[in-house]
Amino acid sequence: MKTPISVMFYDTDAAGVVHNIAYLRFIEAARTLLALEYGMDWASMKETSIFPVILRTEIDYRYPALLGDLLEVESWIGEVSSARFWCHFKIHRPSDRVLLVNCNQSLAFVKMPVGKVQRLPKGFPIPFIPPTSQDVVR
Amino acid sequence: MKTPISVMFYDTDAAGVVHNIAYLRFIEAARTLLALEYGMDWASMKETSIFPVILRTEIDYRYPALLGDLLEVESWIGEVSSARFWCHFKIHRPSDRVLLVNCNQSLAFVKMPVGKVQRLPKGFPIPFIPPTSQDVVR
Amino acid sequence: MKTPISVMFYDTDAAGVVHNIAYLRFIEAARTLLALEYGMDWASMKETSIFPVILRTEIDYRYPALLGDLLEVESWIGEVSSARFWCHFKIHRPSDRVLLVNCNQSLAFVKMPVGKVQRLPKGFPIPFIPPTSQDVVR
Amino acid sequence: MKTPISVMFYDTDAAGVVHNIAYLRFIEAARTLLALEYGMDWASMKETSIFPVILRTEIDYRYPALLGDLLEVESWIGEVSSARFWCHFKIHRPSDRVLLVNCNQSLAFVKMPVGKVQRLPKGFPIPFIPPTSQDVVR
Repeated sequence: MKTPISVMFYDTDAAGVVHNIAYLRFIEAARTLLALEYGMDWASMKETSIFPVILRTEIDYRYPALLGDLLEVESWIGEVSSARFWCHFKIHRPSDRVLLVNCNQSLAFVKMPVGKVQRLPKGFPIPFIPPTSQDVVR
Repeated sequence: MKTPISVMFYDTDAAGVVHNIAYLRFIEAARTLLALEYGMDWASMKETSIFPVILRTEIDYRYPALLGDLLEVESWIGEVSSARFWCHFKIHRPSDRVLLVNCNQSLAFVKMPVGKVQRLPKGFPIPFIPPTSQDVVR
Repeated sequence: MKTPISVMFYDTDAAGVVHNIAYLRFIEAARTLLALEYGMDWASMKETSIFPVILRTEIDYRYPALLGDLLEVESWIGEVSSARFWCHFKIHRPSDRVLLVNCNQSLAFVKMPVGKVQRLPKGFPIPFIPPTSQDVVR
Repeated sequence: MKTPISVMFYDTDAAGVVHNIAYLRFIEAARTLLALEYGMDWASMKETSIFPVILRTEIDYRYPALLGDLLEVESWIGEVSSARFWCHFKIHRPSDRVLLVNCNQSLAFVKMPVGKVQRLPKGFPIPFIPPTSQDVVR
């Protein structure tokens, strides 16, 4: 899945480039749209208080984006285990085809506020059924 | 009350100055510490789901702050009516005594998620007793 | 001009609603796209170091937006004086037609890093020609 | 070095905990103060346009912080190679001694806007002399 991003002033810093933290907002926007594509229903998550939680982020900054750049975040779901899964992201600048950022994120579904990690439903992520069991697996 | 703030990279933008939105984080930090000084108990707010909510912000940007600046946010509570009160803020740069920002914010206490505005307790803000009545006054 | 916004997790806070500062990012995104529509050329602004700068923001928060909401920021340019102009914004939630936020921002074009306010070109904002004179009018 | 952090509303999200991206602001604040302790002179960096740039972030989220928490970011400089160095961070909540976050960041000094990576000065980080050579090592 590809998500377009326009670089705004608030994404940049005094070094004249996009700030390292801003890319993680771009990635979160892409991840949210990816989740919607898989049928994840945020309304029911709010009702059940089961939320996707990031366990680990690995991000490599290769080349900086600039104010006004149009970027593209490519995102997909990778490895899935009993309670965790990985999302992968590549941020390109289509105008010169440069790869700016590589990112991997490991996630789980967690019951809030108690923090219980939920088992992933059989066959996750397709078709996606929000986890409802409250087995602690961590 | 005076709150010191150090300007970080993430506060600046590609124009080389502090981004307009970052000052509102400085002001929120100052406002939170001001609230604590008045004895506002965030734990009980979470329990009661009654939160301070900003109704209006007026902010004038007079001179820009720069990366590495040490700033000072002066904050105080002003006018109080039955259900609303104003907080006032001035952001100075002590090194050259320049006034950078003037800001006024009107707030109320609101029961979430229903959004009911609460009457302010008699004598607010001193001594502060978190509002518990659920009278709708808006 | 109307700009669609999807509310992300990073826009919300522990009160369960969109954080007051997040709306100003929505407004900045809308303002940037409005500027592009008027032909403002960010590349030349970076070259000339003349940037749009916010002088004052007035924002009224009427009803809160929630996680997952699809919002619409309506934006237009209002009053223009010799060196300042106002932008106006209304944020609606189309699903229930509720007006969430009203916002007015006064801006000028400023030569960085010296901070000189530039006169607006004759006929601003149509057709837009980036200001290049360096007359100080403040 | 230990940096205290108070969790503000703008650090939290609708899941009721600190948002994953907010910890990276905490870490940047700690890293900036760590740099100052080593004598890094931000004014001269702005003059030379040589800035510290993050090449890679690895962050593990172990337990969530909550609104109102007082946290402590422990930070130190680790491995140093010819042009890169690692900073390490641990975020604890002193009140219950829980380790919330582990983070490693690899950095380099980069000449902006051309993006040339600078060799680290001999003996980095003690005593710190900002790199001035413009050798490209990447």
